Amino acid sequence: MPSRENHDRMANAIRFLSIDAVEKANSGHPGLPMGAADIATVLYTRYMKHDPHHPHWPDRDRFVLSAGHGSMLLYSLLYLTGYEDITIDEIKNFRQLGSKTAGHPEYGHAAGIETTTGPLGQGLGNAVGMALAERIMNARFGDALVDHHTYALAGDGCLMEGISQEAIAFAGHLKLSKLIVFFDDNGISIDGPVSLSDSTDQCARFEASGWHVQRCDGHDPDAIAGAIEAAKASGKPSMIACKTTIGFGAPTRAGSNKAHGSPLGAEEIAGARKALGWEAKPFVVPSEILDMWRLAGLRSAKDRKEWERRLASAEAELRSEFERRMRGELPGGFEAVISDYKKRLAKEKPKLATRKSSENALEVINGAVPETIGGSADLTGSNNTKTSQTKPITPSDYSGRYVYYGIREHGMAAAMNGMALHGGIVPYGGTFLVFTDYCRPSIRLAALMGLRVIYVMTHDSIGLGEDGPTHQPVEQLAALRAIPNLRVFRPADAVEAAECWQLALEDTSGPSVLALTRQNLPAVRTEHVEENLCGFGAYELETASDDAVVTIFATGSEVEIALAARQQLQANGHPTRVVSVPSMERFARQSPEYRSAMIGNAPVKVAIEAGVRQAWDALIGQDGIFVGMHGFGASGKYEELYKHFGITAEAVVSAVEQKLHDRD
Amino acid sequence: MPSRENHDRMANAIRFLSIDAVEKANSGHPGLPMGAADIATVLYTRYMKHDPHHPHWPDRDRFVLSAGHGSMLLYSLLYLTGYEDITIDEIKNFRQLGSKTAGHPEYGHAAGIETTTGPLGQGLGNAVGMALAERIMNARFGDALVDHHTYALAGDGCLMEGISQEAIAFAGHLKLSKLIVFFDDNGISIDGPVSLSDSTDQCARFEASGWHVQRCDGHDPDAIAGAIEAAKASGKPSMIACKTTIGFGAPTRAGSNKAHGSPLGAEEIAGARKALGWEAKPFVVPSEILDMWRLAGLRSAKDRKEWERRLASAEAELRSEFERRMRGELPGGFEAVISDYKKRLAKEKPKLATRKSSENALEVINGAVPETIGGSADLTGSNNTKTSQTKPITPSDYSGRYVYYGIREHGMAAAMNGMALHGGIVPYGGTFLVFTDYCRPSIRLAALMGLRVIYVMTHDSIGLGEDGPTHQPVEQLAALRAIPNLRVFRPADAVEAAECWQLALEDTSGPSVLALTRQNLPAVRTEHVEENLCGFGAYELETASDDAVVTIFATGSEVEIALAARQQLQANGHPTRVVSVPSMERFARQSPEYRSAMIGNAPVKVAIEAGVRQAWDALIGQDGIFVGMHGFGASGKYEELYKHFGITAEAVVSAVEQKLHDRD
Repeated sequence: MPSRENHDRMANAIRFLSIDAVEKANSGHPGLPMGAADIATVLYTRYMKHDPHHPHWPDRDRFVLSAGHGSMLLYSLLYLTGYEDITIDEIKNFRQLGSKTAGHPEYGHAAGIETTTGPLGQGLGNAVGMALAERIMNARFGDALVDHHTYALAGDGCLMEGISQEAIAFAGHLKLSKLIVFFDDNGISIDGPVSLSDSTDQCARFEASGWHVQRCDGHDPDAIAGAIEAAKASGKPSMIACKTTIGFGAPTRAGSNKAHGSPLGAEEIAGARKALGWEAKPFVVPSEILDMWRLAGLRSAKDRKEWERRLASAEAELRSEFERRMRGELPGGFEAVISDYKKRLAKEKPKLATRKSSENALEVINGAVPETIGGSADLTGSNNTKTSQTKPITPSDYSGRYVYYGIREHGMAAAMNGMALHGGIVPYGGTFLVFTDYCRPSIRLAALMGLRVIYVMTHDSIGLGEDGPTHQPVEQLAALRAIPNLRVFRPADAVEAAECWQLALEDTSGPSVLALTRQNLPAVRTEHVEENLCGFGAYELETASDDAVVTIFATGSEVEIALAARQQLQANGHPTRVVSVPSMERFARQSPEYRSAMIGNAPVKVAIEAGVRQAWDALIGQDGIFVGMHGFGASGKYEELYKHFGITAEAVVSAVEQKLHDRD
Repeated sequence: MPSRENHDRMANAIRFLSIDAVEKANSGHPGLPMGAADIATVLYTRYMKHDPHHPHWPDRDRFVLSAGHGSMLLYSLLYLTGYEDITIDEIKNFRQLGSKTAGHPEYGHAAGIETTTGPLGQGLGNAVGMALAERIMNARFGDALVDHHTYALAGDGCLMEGISQEAIAFAGHLKLSKLIVFFDDNGISIDGPVSLSDSTDQCARFEASGWHVQRCDGHDPDAIAGAIEAAKASGKPSMIACKTTIGFGAPTRAGSNKAHGSPLGAEEIAGARKALGWEAKPFVVPSEILDMWRLAGLRSAKDRKEWERRLASAEAELRSEFERRMRGELPGGFEAVISDYKKRLAKEKPKLATRKSSENALEVINGAVPETIGGSADLTGSNNTKTSQTKPITPSDYSGRYVYYGIREHGMAAAMNGMALHGGIVPYGGTFLVFTDYCRPSIRLAALMGLRVIYVMTHDSIGLGEDGPTHQPVEQLAALRAIPNLRVFRPADAVEAAECWQLALEDTSGPSVLALTRQNLPAVRTEHVEENLCGFGAYELETASDDAVVTIFATGSEVEIALAARQQLQANGHPTRVVSVPSMERFARQSPEYRSAMIGNAPVKVAIEAGVRQAWDALIGQDGIFVGMHGFGASGKYEELYKHFGITAEAVVSAVEQKLHDRD
C-alpha cells in the first residue's frame, strides 16, 4: 500500500500521461483520467487482482471503463502496471491510425482492455454480464477456480442512459455481490453542470434496486479503500459515488466542462504541472514512480501461481472442461449430434413455426453444449428459448442455465456481451425481432468486438398478425444486415433452423441473429441434409425442369410461397428454380463462381421476403421483381395480411408473367 | 361522481367489452383492461378534461396508454364516453384488418388515440414530451388557452425498459407538475411474477428523481381519486402506484400471467360474469350504464365552450398565432426567408462543416419560425443545435426554446414525439448519427405516426476522426433509409443544408434525419439556388462535357470527392457527370422519367458514400462501382482514414478506369 505521498505521485503519473497523450494527439478527453486517477490508483495498487504478464488469466478481476472516453485512464494503468501491449510509444500514438490506443478502448487492440466502450452505459451492462458470468462459472467450477470481482467506472453519462437502469435493476435483483461500480461523480457533463439536465439522487436510485451504496471523497485514497472494503463485505452489488473534480489539477479548467473533451493547451498544462508538483517531461514517468507502479503490477502474481496450481491439481475432467470452455471450443461430437438430429428431421418433416424448430434444435444443443446460457426479455413462451435442461438462475442459486432478463432488451444484449467477454459461456437471448431496435447499440458492439452472442428473434414479420405494425418488423432484416460482422439467419424450416443454430454456435468471430416465425411452416428442406447447406448462405432448393427462365430467391416463411409460385410457373411452362437464402452475409463470402452459379442467368429474377427491398437489389438487380413490404404492416390475421400486402404465390406468378409478357 | 355501485358497474363495462372483444378476436390482452378498469373509470368519470364530440380540443387533457397492449381499455373508454370513431362495431372488429381498433392503439386510426403505443416505455416518454409541450405553450399563450394535464398509464414492462428512466429523470428535473403517471402495479409480467426478474422499489426510484409518489389500492375508487387530487396539488410530476389485480374478476386467472395476453375462454368468462355480477350479453352495455358513461363524456363540454369563448375573445394576433401553430402551418413568408438566405450563401460560398451550415440555417429558421424547440442529448456544442433565439427551458421558466435533454437520446426522441403529438411545436434535437441506434424505437414510431420531428445528427461518418469506430456511423444511413416514411437527408454544403432544413420543416407527414459532418466542406452548390433542388432527392450537380461515360452519385461530404474525381476523369478523356443525392426517399418518389434521366445511361456508374453499400445497388446496379465502407471504421485523423479506407478521388478514378479498360 503506497504512502499518501506515493499515492499522489502514482496518480499524477496517470494524470500527466493522459494530459500529454491528449495534447500530442490534439484530441481526446483529459478530464476523466485526471479526475478519476485517485480511484484508479487505489484500485490498481491495493485491490485489483490481475497479472499484466498473464493478462488472460481466467480468474482475474475485470475492470470496465464504462466511461470509455476516458480511455487514457485505462491505457495509463496498463502501461504503468506493465502490460506488454501498451508501451510508451503506444501512449504517444494515442488516437493515431493503427495504434493500440484508439480514441475509445477497443477490445482486441491490447490485452487488458476487457471490452469496447464509448457508447455510454454499455460498459455498465457488460460489467453486469461479467459479474453474472463469474457467478455462473463459480457455481459450476467452484471457488478454487472462479472467484473474482468485476469493477466498473461509470460517469453521469452512463447513469443517465436508460440502459443503466436495466443493468442496475437486473444486477440488484440477481444480487451480484462481486460487482463494484465507481460512480465518477464530478457533476459535469458536456453541456455544462449536470444540474442543467438532471437532478437525480443516484445513490437513492441504486438503493431502490437493492444495491449497497456509499459516498466518498474520490480524491481521498483511504476513503476510497474503505469504501471498497465495505463494498466487498456488503453481500450486494455495490455502488460507490466518488465525489471528484473533473480535470483535477488543471488551474482554470478543473471542475468545468472545458476539461472534458479537448486538449488542455500549453498554458493550462504548465499550470497543472505546477499545481500537482509534476516536473517530469512529457511522457516521462520518473523511474521511482514507474517502479512503484510496476511493483503494484506484480501484486497478484503469487495469487495467479496458486490458482495455476489449483487448476493443475483439479480433477482432470473438471479441469479439461474448464479449459475447453474458456477456449471457447464446443464439445467434441457436437457436429455429430446436429447431424443425427437433421437426419431425424428429414424423416419427420415437421410442420412447425421456426421459433418452435429453434426450440427443438436448442433442446438438442443444450443437451450437448453445457456452456449455453439462455434467456429472454420476458417473452420466454413466445421466443421458445427455454429447454428442459435450463433451470432458472436465481438470486440465491446461480447453477441454472436460464436467465429471466425482464423487459430489458438492451440490458440483456449488453449483459450477453459481458458474458461472452468473460468467457466460458455462450449466451443466447430472445425477444421479438422488431425489438432488436431496443438493443441495437449492444448488437453493434458485439459485432464490432466479434463476440459469439446469439439473438433469438421471433415474430419476424407481418406473420405475427394481430399485434400490428408496432410489433411487425419490416425494416429490421435490412437494418441488421447493414451491420458489419453480424450474421443474420432466417431459416425456412426445421432443418434450416438446426443448420443456422450450428453455424451460429461454431462461428466464434461474431454475433448471430436468428429471425424466426410465429406461424407454422412446412418442411421445405427434406433432402441433402448430410451437408450444412445454410453455410453457403444461399443454395438451390429446387431446380428448374429445364433452362431456368425464372429464379426465385426467398428466405424463411417466404420460401413456402416461392415453392408454390414455382409449381404454378412450371405448370404454366416457365422453368423456375428456387434459391433459399438463409444468410446474405455467408452468401457474400462465397467464391465468385459459387455466387454467379446461384444467382444464375435466368432472365427473370424475383425475391420474396416479408420485409423491405433494400439489400435485395444486390441479388436480383434493379429490374428484379421484389415481392415484399413497401411500408409498415397492419393489425389483422396473418393470412389476411399476406394477401393484403400482396405477398402470395399468385402475386409472384402474376408479376413474373407480366414481366415475361413485357419482354416478348 | 358515480356511487360505488355505479362505479363498479361502469368499470365492469370496460372489463366485459375488453373480455368480449379479445374473445371474439381470439387474440389480445384482457388482463390489463380488467385490472386497470377502476383507475380508468375514476379518471374518466371525475377528472379527465376532454370532449368526445370535439376530440381535437387543444386544451384537453391527454391520456396515454403507455402499456399499449391493454388497447381494449382505451377503446372501451372511447366508445363508452361517446367518441364517434369508436362504435360498438369497431369494438367487435378488434384486431381485424381495416378496423380502427388495432391490436395496439394506432395514432390516426381514431380520435382520442393520442399516440401509438405498444413498444414498452415509449408512451411514458411521449407523455413527458406532451407535458413539456403544455408548459411551453402555456408560457407563450397563458393559462386562458393552455392549462391541461397529461395522464399516463404504465405497467411493469414500461418501467423496466431503460427509456423509462430517461423519461422519469427528465420529467423530474424539469418539474413537470401537470404530469400524472399511474403505475398499474399488478406484479405480473409475461414470464410470471415480476419477482422472477425484478426487485426494484419503483416508488423509491421515482422519488430519487424528484417525483411526488403515492401508493394506493387500484380497485378503490375513492383512494384513486384522493391520490389524483394529491398529485394535482403536489407541484411535482406525480406517480401513483396502484396495486391492482391483473385480470380482476377472472375466477382462476386473476393475478396470474395467464390473464395477460390471451383470450380467457368461455368457462373463465362465465366465471367472471358471475363473480362481477355482469349479466348482459357479449358486447352489450346495459343502457343505464352506457347512459352514465355518456353523461361522464359530457362532463367537460362546458369547460370546452368557455375555452372557445376565451380563445374568441383573445387578442387577435395571439389567437391567430395559437391557431396557426396548432394547425401545424409554418408562418407566412418562411419560404422567402429561406430563399433570400440561399441567395446570400450562393454569393458567400462558405467552406463549413454541414453541422455548422445547419446551425446557420437554424439561426435563420429560428428567427422566422417561433414554434421550433431545439435541444440536444448533451452535445449542444457538437451538434450546433443552439441559436441566438433559443433561451434554455428550465424547471422554473418554460418560456425558452432550448432543451438540455441530458445524455438521454431515447428519452429525447420519445419526448419529441410527444411534443409533436401535442401540437403547437416543431421539435428538433441532436446527437451523433451513430447514436440514432439509441433512439431508433422512437424514430420508428415517429415514422409510423407520421410526425414532424427533426433529428439533427452530426458526426456522420469516419470523418469524425479520432473518436473511432464506436462513434463512426457506417451502417446508420442504410439502416435509417430502411425505415418506411422516414426522410434521411445528407446535405453536401450550406445551400443543400438550408434546402434540407426547409424540406424537413415543410413536410408535415413524417420525421426527418439530417446527417451532418463534423469536418469542413467546400461549397459545391453555388448555382440554381432559386429552386429547392434537394426536393428532387437527387439532381445533376455537374454535367459531363460530352455524352457521359461515367455517372458518379454521392452524398454529403463525398460530393467533394465526386467532383474531384470528375475533374480528373474528364481530363483523362472520360466525360463524367455528378449527381448529388441528398435524399434517396425523395428521389424514389419522383416520376419514372425524372428518375431515369438522373440515373442516366452512362455505362459506368459509381456511388461514393462513407457508409455501407446497401441501398446503393438500387441506383448503380449490381455491377456499379461502390466507393465507401466495407466494415467498421477506425480511430485516427479523418484525412488519413479516408485514405486508409480508400474513399478518395484517386480510388474512384482508378476503379473507373479499370472498369473502362475491362470493358474494352
